[in-house]
Amino acid sequence: MSNQQNRSIYLAGPDVFWPNAVELGAAKKALCLRYGFSGHFPLDTELDIEGLQPFPAGIAIYQANINIMDCCDIIIANMTPFRGPSMDVGTAFEMGYMAAQQKIIWGYSLDGQLYSNRIEGTATDQDGYTIESFDMADNLMMIGATENSGGVLTESLPQTLENHLRVFEKVLQQL
Amino acid sequence: MSNQQNRSIYLAGPDVFWPNAVELGAAKKALCLRYGFSGHFPLDTELDIEGLQPFPAGIAIYQANINIMDCCDIIIANMTPFRGPSMDVGTAFEMGYMAAQQKIIWGYSLDGQLYSNRIEGTATDQDGYTIESFDMADNLMMIGATENSGGVLTESLPQTLENHLRVFEKVLQQL
Repeated sequence: MSNQQNRSIYLAGPDVFWPNAVELGAAKKALCLRYGFSGHFPLDTELDIEGLQPFPAGIAIYQANINIMDCCDIIIANMTPFRGPSMDVGTAFEMGYMAAQQKIIWGYSLDGQLYSNRIEGTATDQDGYTIESFDMADNLMMIGATENSGGVLTESLPQTLENHLRVFEKVLQQL
Repeated sequence: MSNQQNRSIYLAGPDVFWPNAVELGAAKKALCLRYGFSGHFPLDTELDIEGLQPFPAGIAIYQANINIMDCCDIIIANMTPFRGPSMDVGTAFEMGYMAAQQKIIWGYSLDGQLYSNRIEGTATDQDGYTIESFDMADNLMMIGATENSGGVLTESLPQTLENHLRVFEKVLQQL
């Protein structure tokens, strides 16, 4: 590798909640290597949280993720909707964290619809809240961040490991 | 005011999607003033997005929100669940953005349940994803950030304007 700069990628997403999270993380990291990047998955850290109560265990994981982000130059976020019409909130937090550090923000989603089309209702939803209609894949904060320094790739595909890797690899090709 | 430092508060939340967003923002700002703070609501900026297509209009709003955050010392985020078991993703992004700038992160929620209790299933949800069980009000990234420098107040109350202001004021009292 001639260019050692901007080569560390934080692999963000609800991937960590997958039953095969470790396999997915390893596969993404292998792809990163193939394109000359070093991928870092939140589950990588050898945290010793055994014996901790749930709350302090969660805080320890938070700090470990912060430490990984601080060492990475790029984030590639899995922005596929998670438990609702929007992406995973933890991943959204991480995109904001990296944006404030002026890092490179990329995202991908296996849902090609516009955010506004994923919510029932036209101008407002069932609770009376305005539905953002900015022709964007999700809330404008995340799309703004990717537009500013990176990009977002969306394709409507079933959420299989293979499809995640397929679209993830397309992001790597554009980096 | 003797202390002019750490006095600007970014008022984050899905409040901007409320039908009475302007009223809610004004009321929060009035409360901020009463406690010696200066509150900044995302809708404050006099953005001229008329004539813009939806996408560039969204990008302009993103940039305006970033500019407000860059000028604030504190964020108070409305973390009440929004369109799902978690908080609004745009607000989550903003908490991450402010966390990376080492700012003070406070949140409140009108849902006092633990995150894990808002999702059907025990160890995993209906799609097979692990349910985080860290005795936290939401995903550990946001709770970690509030734990690190600030706090989070939760109370189970109906989502009326009055209740939002009531819990919001309790946060101001602790600042």
